[in-house]
Amino acid sequence: MAEDTRERVEALLREHGYRRPDAVLPAAVLEVVFHALEGQAAVAIMRGVEEVARTRELAVGFSEISGRNSDKRGWVEQVLARRPTGVIGVYASFSPREQARFAAAGIPLVALDPTGEPLHTTPSVGAANWSGGLAAARHVIELGHRRIAVIGGPVSFLCSRARLDGFHAAMDEAGIPVDPALIRHGRFMFDDGLSHGLALLKFREPPTAIICGDDLQAMGVYEAARQLGLRIPDDLSVIGFDDIDYAQWMGPPLTTVRQPLAKMGATAAELVLMLADGEEPTQTRVELATSLIVRGSTAPPRRA
Amino acid sequence: MAEDTRERVEALLREHGYRRPDAVLPAAVLEVVFHALEGQAAVAIMRGVEEVARTRELAVGFSEISGRNSDKRGWVEQVLARRPTGVIGVYASFSPREQARFAAAGIPLVALDPTGEPLHTTPSVGAANWSGGLAAARHVIELGHRRIAVIGGPVSFLCSRARLDGFHAAMDEAGIPVDPALIRHGRFMFDDGLSHGLALLKFREPPTAIICGDDLQAMGVYEAARQLGLRIPDDLSVIGFDDIDYAQWMGPPLTTVRQPLAKMGATAAELVLMLADGEEPTQTRVELATSLIVRGSTAPPRRA
Repeated sequence: MAEDTRERVEALLREHGYRRPDAVLPAAVLEVVFHALEGQAAVAIMRGVEEVARTRELAVGFSEISGRNSDKRGWVEQVLARRPTGVIGVYASFSPREQARFAAAGIPLVALDPTGEPLHTTPSVGAANWSGGLAAARHVIELGHRRIAVIGGPVSFLCSRARLDGFHAAMDEAGIPVDPALIRHGRFMFDDGLSHGLALLKFREPPTAIICGDDLQAMGVYEAARQLGLRIPDDLSVIGFDDIDYAQWMGPPLTTVRQPLAKMGATAAELVLMLADGEEPTQTRVELATSLIVRGSTAPPRRA
Repeated sequence: MAEDTRERVEALLREHGYRRPDAVLPAAVLEVVFHALEGQAAVAIMRGVEEVARTRELAVGFSEISGRNSDKRGWVEQVLARRPTGVIGVYASFSPREQARFAAAGIPLVALDPTGEPLHTTPSVGAANWSGGLAAARHVIELGHRRIAVIGGPVSFLCSRARLDGFHAAMDEAGIPVDPALIRHGRFMFDDGLSHGLALLKFREPPTAIICGDDLQAMGVYEAARQLGLRIPDDLSVIGFDDIDYAQWMGPPLTTVRQPLAKMGATAAELVLMLADGEEPTQTRVELATSLIVRGSTAPPRRA
């Protein structure tokens, strides 16, 4: 096509409102990808993302890569096909190859609380896990507990390690030796809190306080205590992590380390939109503060 | 533009891959609109919607119209601007005017568990609330309870009325008179379960069983019992509604009426996609079965 013909055609196109196919608007969706879409934490994160997306008139989409959908590669294809403005991966780690595919498609990717190895090329948002672990341990130490157990999250998750390291720092600071038998690991689930809780509480010298990896594990420890006829906080102090809505409704209300989940979602959304706008983020790792919420599940130990 | 010119231009357009602006692909998003995005029920519904959307390679978007975003009209504009393939309204009722605006934009709308007046023009998906209320009441009647209280949802919600009517049917069937003082209404929240629970349990002749409008209210009744030193199920039987994940983790695990929330989400998604395809649905109101899940919170009354 000669240059003048092209110009004439393009002028006609503009005049009649046609656009180039590569100018077809991509689906204006900010997609949140969950490792597993479950629990109150997911809802809080999504609310935070939505709050930011709304200011940009974007829809918030979501999908799940674990469980039913084991075909992870198929999932990446599907997300790419939808051409989202940006993708936020929650508790999901992406392989270098997957990251490269998003990069090649020009779709920015941000990780929220990545649980695996640091993704140097992927900007991420997390909580101050180490400080949270420290604050939880200091709280029960100050109440007079010495025999303190930890049910941590999976060893492979960085957040679990950071929380456990914070616990160790508080114990060191107070000069209390840590009994390795009292340090356990489980998935962030009720069942694992229950089984580890039962095991710990059946020790000849059971712990007087249990610090859990999340609030669901703490619910499991409540059930373990109930099954063994132990009262919280009289016979056992329990601390959770996250502060999901249900934490305040447990009997007794749960002392826990609050992660600002909605704010983490909002921050991840802001970060991914900056990247989508071609801006260079000032920091590629944002860590938001955690805070200890003291409720009714912690008290001085009986024999203190 | 002369006809032959138009044809030549259109041929050129096709050849070079241009399309008409009205052929710009709409964002392939199925949008779920929550009255309030909170709780475990929301996650279950979204998982069901996502399962169906995935088979069509659609993204699932969501938004919230209550709370922070009181500008409901602005919200409708925003959803329309995103041109979703379809919209599912959860616990949200739309005014005739709003329904007309969706219809005019050619965006199908399906209501999931509509809480207000029947929307004759909007297809809807719900649960068998009346049967659920009946099953809950029959269960405690069969255990020997006679003094049975109900904390229902808001009177204005059709689902609350249906459940309460089911309760009355079971009481009539068993020939047990209903004490009007034992019938209360509250929002589907922990706090309302707690306050009504405390009020009921402080009666000179307190109920031996309380049937709640949802699992959150049941959690509030658990707390009321705990504050008054009453044990469940020894001193009080409690039944919830929904069977959110947390119901099984309460101490004791909660007997409740299960709503198939994920299936309700999937059914609403299928219905809205049928409408989007221009098909005529065979039924405009789909009601899925509820089922009683008996766990540890119900037992014969102490003095039976």
